[in-house]
Amino acid sequence: MGIVLGDNRYGKAEVHLVRVDRAADRHALADVTVSVSLSGELADVHLRGDNRNVLTTDAQKNTVFAFAADGVGQIEEFGLRLARHFVASQPAIRRAVVRLTEQPWDRIEGDGGPAPHSFARNGTCLRTAQVCGTADGVEVGSGLTGLTLLNTTDSEFWGFARDRYTTLAETRDRVLATAVDARWRHRSADGDFGTSYRDVRRLLTTAFAETYSYSLQQTLYAMGERVLAAHPEIAEIRLSLPNKHHFLVDLSPHGIENADTVYYAADRPYGLIEGTVTRDDAAPSMMDW
Amino acid sequence: MGIVLGDNRYGKAEVHLVRVDRAADRHALADVTVSVSLSGELADVHLRGDNRNVLTTDAQKNTVFAFAADGVGQIEEFGLRLARHFVASQPAIRRAVVRLTEQPWDRIEGDGGPAPHSFARNGTCLRTAQVCGTADGVEVGSGLTGLTLLNTTDSEFWGFARDRYTTLAETRDRVLATAVDARWRHRSADGDFGTSYRDVRRLLTTAFAETYSYSLQQTLYAMGERVLAAHPEIAEIRLSLPNKHHFLVDLSPHGIENADTVYYAADRPYGLIEGTVTRDDAAPSMMDW
Amino acid sequence: MGIVLGDNRYGKAEVHLVRVDRAADRHALADVTVSVSLSGELADVHLRGDNRNVLTTDAQKNTVFAFAADGVGQIEEFGLRLARHFVASQPAIRRAVVRLTEQPWDRIEGDGGPAPHSFARNGTCLRTAQVCGTADGVEVGSGLTGLTLLNTTDSEFWGFARDRYTTLAETRDRVLATAVDARWRHRSADGDFGTSYRDVRRLLTTAFAETYSYSLQQTLYAMGERVLAAHPEIAEIRLSLPNKHHFLVDLSPHGIENADTVYYAADRPYGLIEGTVTRDDAAPSMMDW
Amino acid sequence: MGIVLGDNRYGKAEVHLVRVDRAADRHALADVTVSVSLSGELADVHLRGDNRNVLTTDAQKNTVFAFAADGVGQIEEFGLRLARHFVASQPAIRRAVVRLTEQPWDRIEGDGGPAPHSFARNGTCLRTAQVCGTADGVEVGSGLTGLTLLNTTDSEFWGFARDRYTTLAETRDRVLATAVDARWRHRSADGDFGTSYRDVRRLLTTAFAETYSYSLQQTLYAMGERVLAAHPEIAEIRLSLPNKHHFLVDLSPHGIENADTVYYAADRPYGLIEGTVTRDDAAPSMMDW
Repeated sequence: MGIVLGDNRYGKAEVHLVRVDRAADRHALADVTVSVSLSGELADVHLRGDNRNVLTTDAQKNTVFAFAADGVGQIEEFGLRLARHFVASQPAIRRAVVRLTEQPWDRIEGDGGPAPHSFARNGTCLRTAQVCGTADGVEVGSGLTGLTLLNTTDSEFWGFARDRYTTLAETRDRVLATAVDARWRHRSADGDFGTSYRDVRRLLTTAFAETYSYSLQQTLYAMGERVLAAHPEIAEIRLSLPNKHHFLVDLSPHGIENADTVYYAADRPYGLIEGTVTRDDAAPSMMDW
Repeated sequence: MGIVLGDNRYGKAEVHLVRVDRAADRHALADVTVSVSLSGELADVHLRGDNRNVLTTDAQKNTVFAFAADGVGQIEEFGLRLARHFVASQPAIRRAVVRLTEQPWDRIEGDGGPAPHSFARNGTCLRTAQVCGTADGVEVGSGLTGLTLLNTTDSEFWGFARDRYTTLAETRDRVLATAVDARWRHRSADGDFGTSYRDVRRLLTTAFAETYSYSLQQTLYAMGERVLAAHPEIAEIRLSLPNKHHFLVDLSPHGIENADTVYYAADRPYGLIEGTVTRDDAAPSMMDW
Repeated sequence: MGIVLGDNRYGKAEVHLVRVDRAADRHALADVTVSVSLSGELADVHLRGDNRNVLTTDAQKNTVFAFAADGVGQIEEFGLRLARHFVASQPAIRRAVVRLTEQPWDRIEGDGGPAPHSFARNGTCLRTAQVCGTADGVEVGSGLTGLTLLNTTDSEFWGFARDRYTTLAETRDRVLATAVDARWRHRSADGDFGTSYRDVRRLLTTAFAETYSYSLQQTLYAMGERVLAAHPEIAEIRLSLPNKHHFLVDLSPHGIENADTVYYAADRPYGLIEGTVTRDDAAPSMMDW
Repeated sequence: MGIVLGDNRYGKAEVHLVRVDRAADRHALADVTVSVSLSGELADVHLRGDNRNVLTTDAQKNTVFAFAADGVGQIEEFGLRLARHFVASQPAIRRAVVRLTEQPWDRIEGDGGPAPHSFARNGTCLRTAQVCGTADGVEVGSGLTGLTLLNTTDSEFWGFARDRYTTLAETRDRVLATAVDARWRHRSADGDFGTSYRDVRRLLTTAFAETYSYSLQQTLYAMGERVLAAHPEIAEIRLSLPNKHHFLVDLSPHGIENADTVYYAADRPYGLIEGTVTRDDAAPSMMDW
């Protein structure tokens, strides 16, 4: 039972890059946080502290900033440029994973129309991407996190299993709320990722709103199915949906009827529903999402 | 030098209330977090553990939920109802301070128009209010927090004091970014707080965008002045503006020119500019903001 | 009703400094986060963007690091050195407030005794200080935050006021838990702040443990009184004590008796008890804590 | 290319349980946060909203509290009891994963010795466990998170790969700091998990302190190897080590020499070193850690 090195990787995490495009009269803004993770022939550094094959995480950070000089574009494309670079330029690196999070900003509306160089941060929903590159090819994933949605009705929950510890009352009408964390894998590294992203976000949102729900699992599947049905370029989608519980407050001790009106929004504990919607012919993924 | 009880207060913090208005075909949503703080004849509870004058924080929480059954309305009004109630109903309570934070939600746009009962959380900018009630009257403040703004140009910084520890280069063009935390005090407890709030938010945003800035202090004053000039109902405004530093990355070691394009967005440390813009005839405030 | 500049201040926040003392065979470590806030003749910068009187926040940051070259010592002393420097060296600066937070580290115990240059972060209880300097003198405060304490018994809560919204059951035995945030003001800028801090922390802890409590307010007062009684050098102490609710779980639906054994530790809402214990001859404070 | 349901699971997350053992004169405290995740025959709930096979997350929460009535013990054992219960009692559930985090508390030392029923929260290092149960057996993992360590010397970093973007200077002496996140998998579900945990924590700490380091990867391997060498009951260990950068501050512009004394502790970006140390005969893991 010899002791050996197993899976390993390293990189620079959370490089927060802001790029200003000043080419036109109206400036444009990209706000992206990038994490790089490399693996390959790294046994010597672990076993003997021999750094010969180690591209420093400082250089990885510098690379992120340097590549941004040429533009960021869609974050999937920026991730692809970086992943391909690390694998192509470093012989010892066999695999590069780049994870990106984009903070959207809106142009400020002034009295005289859109401000040419002023922006307001837009929301808690962040766009994400995860790209993997190896000598054999690349894989591109997109995603979003923090898309918080709530339906005030059209959600039931009943007919569930019962055991000694089950006390939950069945309900034919409840508030259903979640904060969507979604990641989807593209079939190809080519694509119009910006257009695709906006439409997937729209579909996730409208599927949540329009699904008459008997469980959050059912809503999850409906969301994923709608995305795959409309986007043949997507191989699979993974959804992680916390059930952000809203409990009706019992106002009867105060002589007040609570007609499905007043809720307590709980923090913890929360339900957590996780699932994948995929295609029966989807190729296996190259990477750990 | 006898030991005595000084200022004190107590209450329930962060009651997270969601109210659904189902009266119309289109539901409406209020998402408010309320903190109550009471003070008054509380020496006995501190000195002897005599709880006779203590309205429990549990009852305060219940009151928040119970009052919501009748509607929330503008958060300033909800705070006023609560503050007046605590002072009027509890003889030992001399002062009630209610702080409120409202999370805005947007109605989801579906394929067939606005969804009747589906919502998406809107952003990181939260609306706030702080209300104080005593036997002598009330005071109402409004505010916002998390309004993150960025100008890509029209910001200079030079001509500053220099000492042994000053190494900062002067600049005639920099990125200026902040996350606005603003609170303003109304002259009266009557008012159209919703309309006022939306306009103050607009003015803070456009003043930031339209002020050619030689310092964040100057921008702060311009923001506050614009609000007071347009809103005679506001007695004063307090602004806390972190200077969210964006540092140009030196790409010259890689043979790349950085033409005011690529920035590193730093977390800490950050500048912090705090200031009040007021009226020369403003009455003193009743409360600790 | 002219619009005027009111109270204002500015500075660099959260300068995270780590100092290694390598003078002895056993290294020593100081880990301090410093925030500086200056005020004075700053009307011109607000009204006209004239930065002549502005010592840049970058220079303030540099000063923190530069002063650390000579040693940090007790954080109160480090704050005093900084506050006095800013007021003495900058004619336009009338008041400097320095807030400091120290992260304690323990020396690691190795097999062969204490490691000479290895440390493990110790806990969530951080030591704090706030120092104010003006031309007229200085004021020194100490504090701590994040000292989380829990008594499993010796806490009752009954005899409280009752109104329409009161449903809480009286209890003769409950869990009482809090996370102490305490700040205390010294009578003088001279003192053995390290010894004083350690003893105040001990007294707060033991007073919490040893007070048979009828309310958290009573415990608060007992904690403050014990500190003032033992430390004549302290003028007043301010305590902010969240009541970290532990609710007994009702296991009776499962046929299980819960004999004051199983609790749900709630996050929000929470009670918040704030109070000052002071001396009847305490001079007024120079600063906003 | 039909659309199908892929991997999925659901459960209740972050049930925060505090258990008081009042059996002896000296009370004992367990503070554990539990997340349950179940998978199995759940296609119907996703595809049709048929909840027949769904044990509600509310019942899972109730189960956690109910099982705690009989005692918590080592968190691995508590997780095992829960995992086995869910799989054994719910025919549709094929796999139960239970993740647990324990917050340690110290008994308060009073003037008269250890307090019988008073506790202070101890630190940021949390003990963790992850347990997987299926019809075929169970797997037990232990871990810790938030163990923050720092060496002031005995760390070099040089001889690394160089490319166009490499500007980092080589160093023969640097500060090395990390916050250990470690998880290890046991060969068996039987064991003295408390004793094992305490020793693994000690070994990770002393291996960090005692390893003369040429890279954080080397330190990672040394930490894992030391654990496996001493603990034959452990099959593998996974370590995630952020490189918490401490940058020497350049004080030369102020005419001050910085003799490896004053550091700026950076937040982001940070290096992230992840690796597994395993045995060449380790059986594959049943679960996704």
